[in-house]
Amino acid sequence: MTIADLQGQLRSFVAERDWEQFHSPKNLVMALTAEGGELTEIFQWLTPQQSLDVMSDPVAATDVADELADVLAYLLRLADVLQVDLAEALRSKITKNAVKYPTDLARGTAAKYSDLPGREKA
Amino acid sequence: MTIADLQGQLRSFVAERDWEQFHSPKNLVMALTAEGGELTEIFQWLTPQQSLDVMSDPVAATDVADELADVLAYLLRLADVLQVDLAEALRSKITKNAVKYPTDLARGTAAKYSDLPGREKA
Amino acid sequence: MTIADLQGQLRSFVAERDWEQFHSPKNLVMALTAEGGELTEIFQWLTPQQSLDVMSDPVAATDVADELADVLAYLLRLADVLQVDLAEALRSKITKNAVKYPTDLARGTAAKYSDLPGREKA
Amino acid sequence: MTIADLQGQLRSFVAERDWEQFHSPKNLVMALTAEGGELTEIFQWLTPQQSLDVMSDPVAATDVADELADVLAYLLRLADVLQVDLAEALRSKITKNAVKYPTDLARGTAAKYSDLPGREKA
Repeated sequence: MTIADLQGQLRSFVAERDWEQFHSPKNLVMALTAEGGELTEIFQWLTPQQSLDVMSDPVAATDVADELADVLAYLLRLADVLQVDLAEALRSKITKNAVKYPTDLARGTAAKYSDLPGREKA
Repeated sequence: MTIADLQGQLRSFVAERDWEQFHSPKNLVMALTAEGGELTEIFQWLTPQQSLDVMSDPVAATDVADELADVLAYLLRLADVLQVDLAEALRSKITKNAVKYPTDLARGTAAKYSDLPGREKA
Repeated sequence: MTIADLQGQLRSFVAERDWEQFHSPKNLVMALTAEGGELTEIFQWLTPQQSLDVMSDPVAATDVADELADVLAYLLRLADVLQVDLAEALRSKITKNAVKYPTDLARGTAAKYSDLPGREKA
Repeated sequence: MTIADLQGQLRSFVAERDWEQFHSPKNLVMALTAEGGELTEIFQWLTPQQSLDVMSDPVAATDVADELADVLAYLLRLADVLQVDLAEALRSKITKNAVKYPTDLARGTAAKYSDLPGREKA
């Protein structure tokens, strides 16, 4: 199952309901962040450790999978409408991030690339 | 390029930097929504029409692709850490949504499923 | 300094720049969530304990204060444009929440009101 | 009704339920963005024009007021826990923004300060 396959399924779902009129990139960005908010609600009061165990509760596990799916759905729709190749965009971003976060400087730290110890300020 | 392939690339990127310690589901949800915020910033003042044309500006196009990639990266990491099969989760959600939004009731309306005209209130 | 005073300052700031044209409620909601994303970025990799100490770093303290101010600014603008009395809305919501979360059922638990132990399912 | 008054009411509400244990800044940031997501959901499919009329529907008006109140509540809690003076933070940010967005350069444009026409690149 490829990204393009999933996008095709969503495209049909939307077309069958005549929803293209609502799927401007602006609206889809809002829908994506609204789903991100629902995902956040599941995790907001959990400790990091509890968040690692969230899938052991069947009700929470279904909620988490559904919210991940909702975020993915709007992300795929956005990329489809904007004609962005998501896999290519991700590969390109990984390459950029490998430069911003060289392994010797970034190992074991969560600092932003501009604040990495050993990195001269731009 | 499958979802699993992309997750494998990200897993290596993270392991090479000893970043697994930061990638609790709770933290990854926050990183996902922070990237959603950066995506939102690009679109916040655009009209819906302007949002359709955003990729015609090369600088904005790169920014959009990078932010979509960032959202995808954290979504893939989340699913990987939580051991959720994203493609399966999406197929399952599409099936649920087909029930919530039957084509005859949902066509041409952006109403929430519980508010669809013709839908009796639960 | 009242909420209305702060809204007045923001209204002048916007008027002096002829920015009312961009401040539809839809756009302001996006701006609010984009600022929420910047706030999230500061906290995403911190442990809960580290998040309690964030203001002890002067650089982070300024960043946090600036992001809180940005969220507040767009919240005040939204309420102003929508003519919602924020203080009254909050008092009303606190009253509703006191019913949803009675102290005897809600004490010491982060469960959602519909899942409170002792609460019959609606 | 001052910001400090509202914070006092929320502090009592939280203390009566023994919820301080959940209100780390990290968790409160997540709660704030989750509420921002609910606010976004109301507006996501509206046109900018429709968003201006949202309060004319009594059901939507109540929803909007409730969500604005929820965002405000977590913003006030965050500032309280972090001991940030919100009004002072906002005044300070307005002063910074007045420098970043001089009226002669910023009038009538939604460009980011670093992209303002007439602004030399930093």
